[in-house]
Amino acid sequence: MSRIPTGLQSRIMSAEQAAALITSGMTLGMSGFTLVGYPKAIPGALAASGHAKNLTLCTGASVGDDMDGVMARAGIISRRYSYQSNKSTRTLINEGSIGYIDMHLSHVPAFVNRQMGGIHIDAAVIECAAITENGLIPAASMGASDAFVRVADKVIVELNETIPLDIIGMHDVFEIGLPPNAKPIPIVHPLDRVGLNYIPCPPEKIAAIVVTQLKDKSPAFTEPNEISRVIGGHIIDFLKSEVSAGRLPQNLLPLQSGVGSVANAVLQAFADSGFRGLTMYTETFQDSALDLLDQGVVLGATTCAVSFSEAAQERFYGNLAAYREKLVLRSQELSNNPELIRRLGLVSMNTPIEVDIYGNVNSTHVAGSAVMNGIGGSGDFTRNASLNIFATESVGKKGAISCIVPMASHVDHTEHDTQIIVTEQGVADLRWKTPLERAELLIENCSHPDYRPMLRSYLEQAKKTAKSQHTPHDLSQALSWHQRFLETGSMK
Amino acid sequence: MSRIPTGLQSRIMSAEQAAALITSGMTLGMSGFTLVGYPKAIPGALAASGHAKNLTLCTGASVGDDMDGVMARAGIISRRYSYQSNKSTRTLINEGSIGYIDMHLSHVPAFVNRQMGGIHIDAAVIECAAITENGLIPAASMGASDAFVRVADKVIVELNETIPLDIIGMHDVFEIGLPPNAKPIPIVHPLDRVGLNYIPCPPEKIAAIVVTQLKDKSPAFTEPNEISRVIGGHIIDFLKSEVSAGRLPQNLLPLQSGVGSVANAVLQAFADSGFRGLTMYTETFQDSALDLLDQGVVLGATTCAVSFSEAAQERFYGNLAAYREKLVLRSQELSNNPELIRRLGLVSMNTPIEVDIYGNVNSTHVAGSAVMNGIGGSGDFTRNASLNIFATESVGKKGAISCIVPMASHVDHTEHDTQIIVTEQGVADLRWKTPLERAELLIENCSHPDYRPMLRSYLEQAKKTAKSQHTPHDLSQALSWHQRFLETGSMK
Repeated sequence: MSRIPTGLQSRIMSAEQAAALITSGMTLGMSGFTLVGYPKAIPGALAASGHAKNLTLCTGASVGDDMDGVMARAGIISRRYSYQSNKSTRTLINEGSIGYIDMHLSHVPAFVNRQMGGIHIDAAVIECAAITENGLIPAASMGASDAFVRVADKVIVELNETIPLDIIGMHDVFEIGLPPNAKPIPIVHPLDRVGLNYIPCPPEKIAAIVVTQLKDKSPAFTEPNEISRVIGGHIIDFLKSEVSAGRLPQNLLPLQSGVGSVANAVLQAFADSGFRGLTMYTETFQDSALDLLDQGVVLGATTCAVSFSEAAQERFYGNLAAYREKLVLRSQELSNNPELIRRLGLVSMNTPIEVDIYGNVNSTHVAGSAVMNGIGGSGDFTRNASLNIFATESVGKKGAISCIVPMASHVDHTEHDTQIIVTEQGVADLRWKTPLERAELLIENCSHPDYRPMLRSYLEQAKKTAKSQHTPHDLSQALSWHQRFLETGSMK
Repeated sequence: MSRIPTGLQSRIMSAEQAAALITSGMTLGMSGFTLVGYPKAIPGALAASGHAKNLTLCTGASVGDDMDGVMARAGIISRRYSYQSNKSTRTLINEGSIGYIDMHLSHVPAFVNRQMGGIHIDAAVIECAAITENGLIPAASMGASDAFVRVADKVIVELNETIPLDIIGMHDVFEIGLPPNAKPIPIVHPLDRVGLNYIPCPPEKIAAIVVTQLKDKSPAFTEPNEISRVIGGHIIDFLKSEVSAGRLPQNLLPLQSGVGSVANAVLQAFADSGFRGLTMYTETFQDSALDLLDQGVVLGATTCAVSFSEAAQERFYGNLAAYREKLVLRSQELSNNPELIRRLGLVSMNTPIEVDIYGNVNSTHVAGSAVMNGIGGSGDFTRNASLNIFATESVGKKGAISCIVPMASHVDHTEHDTQIIVTEQGVADLRWKTPLERAELLIENCSHPDYRPMLRSYLEQAKKTAKSQHTPHDLSQALSWHQRFLETGSMK
């Protein structure tokens, strides 16, 4: 089949011509999620031209440097919404040059759909594999693209010819509707298909089509080190103990696994775990997940995006028709939806920056002020999963930072939400534990031996000075570790 | 009809005899929510006897002093789960004598149902209006009673003869099921009935029936003062502006209103607002809500409990048959369910203890260490509502405390979750605002003039010293207001 209907051939133009449709002050809704399926030609054209300034850029989640970085460095982005993980963008946010609003990923499409707080998407820019009479066949991520297309004044398509057309049928696009007319989402299994395999879009809304052959920048996974292997082992052991206790089925419940190398390593641990017949319901699907699928450990998955290294990308695109039976690509409005996360009863696994002794988790900020990436989907999953796990090395920066601290310098997941904390030192099961019991478990089981006596000493001092023994804090010292790190480069 | 089936008459016994079925170390699941529908005779008997010690008490939410206070003061409670608002219980928690685990109310029944983390309910003690061949007709709160009855080894009923039998048909009990077999909840309107009007309970599980005529301790509402009237006015004006902007329907979306006098006063403001045809989907239904129902301003509501003054109680019980058409009593698993809160698109209104300049909200702790009540349903509603509002006076303790602070001393609702902050000073609309924009709005629109220069000065100092302009904090001063309050009794 042709990738573009005859009636739309006239809208084909260069990236520069399409970029000219974007003007200063616009709010752009762009496709892309975990470095996949984002526009690659128009961002470059916008950056080179510089005619459109003061843009607000809203994406599903993180996109490649050839989009986020290129546009940020050109100085044309004044506001950036939802999740990012780009070095240049992060630097400009922390310098105060780009205003950043860090949101739960499930909120983004929901807020855009009902134009919450007056947000309006002037133009949607969406990477697609094809355009049909009825709408768009997205690339290998869904993100918030369906919402952007729905509400945008105009749609600009980057049509990527490198994506095999066998991707048609992998997406599942379901419109929930707006309150008071929103509908139940009839998904009861990760592989249920309940919607369309394209994003509905009237042809007249498509203002431009730019044909590209630009591949996604593959994320670089570091090979798992000994420490992440130990962490993965702890998680497997913990899940086995839950199965033994009759609290999880033999094939567990659908797994969610976060972004990045630690998450990738943790998932690798499932390969030799003995677990079989697993499913996943997750926002991103990395190399190790593809391995588990190929090994038959994982039977199938919902994901909002695939996010593969170059080798895994080749494997995936080379066997799309087969993977289409086992993978469903859904919008983040569904992949991260509390209704579905709770109904399916996910086991979520995410990576914190730091955890405090009472189980509050910081996922976003360094020493309270500087943002790292963003909360992403970790809030959606943690709050609603039937079992949530945060896994991290117990120390960072070669021991200069303890990941277990007296008080989190920024809180993204509260004590009411967190359950299982894992480091290479061990596991703290915080369920049904009081704040003081949590502190004991986190200090004894999870903190690094170098910091353990300091944490014990903080807790004793807090118990002595605080006016309550419920969550005793010594406010004069609670953030002193972070202050010391800022002043000396080490928490020690 | 008789309130007790013939076959169960033999299980009638005194409160003392029923209390004897409870032994040391047991975990009790007791009915009750916002001071309504809790057992009143057995707690007293347990306290008087003292034979059963080291009890773990799990409730839906807050219960009267004749249960929570009496048992706490008797020293027989070692652990207390989910929400409480009792003075004695609070004191013992903060002294470290009672271990308290403060949970999202939607989590409690979900965790109990699947015995998450190994929790087991030894005995459910449930206040009822009647027992039928099929199960229990609860009193005027549902709380987590259906979950407690489902999983408990035995059920003890306090049968309250003062509750008119016209209450039969007001409850709606729906079993979601456990993952991986959980079902969609088919509710699309607050008044939809989708389940049974009783809690299923096999007769053989009922170990004891204690007949009582003890009324709920009515909550005392203070008459709204001028400040809460101003706050209510700000909220009405804000909602009208949302309607004018086409962002809310004329009859809004279902309202949720929190517990207590401020919430009651805010709801009163709807009476003369001009709004009509409203609905509510909420966890508690207070006097002012009953007034709105009688005035026809509110057409109907789902609630987990009614929580009325003595006068409103009389009005309610005197016209139960009529109110049954307009009120649905559901378990907190449904009233607080993210699936339903998001689908129905609630407008939530809750009361914080303090809000920091970046919009993080503390709902539970005083100066970081001492717990006040608990998070209750505020997390469930805030995260999932289509519009969430936190309303508070700008100062507390006659001006000694600012409710807008540099950094929250405990975080229950993160910057990712909060939207609209209201004080008597004005409204801060935080939607799509960066942290620094939020700080400007909160300081200029919401903080008290006495504290405004101090907040401005903190922010300027933070911008100068922090390593990032994203969320600039001066960690050496961030909690200094709370320290000063602890040392001098004032934040000034």
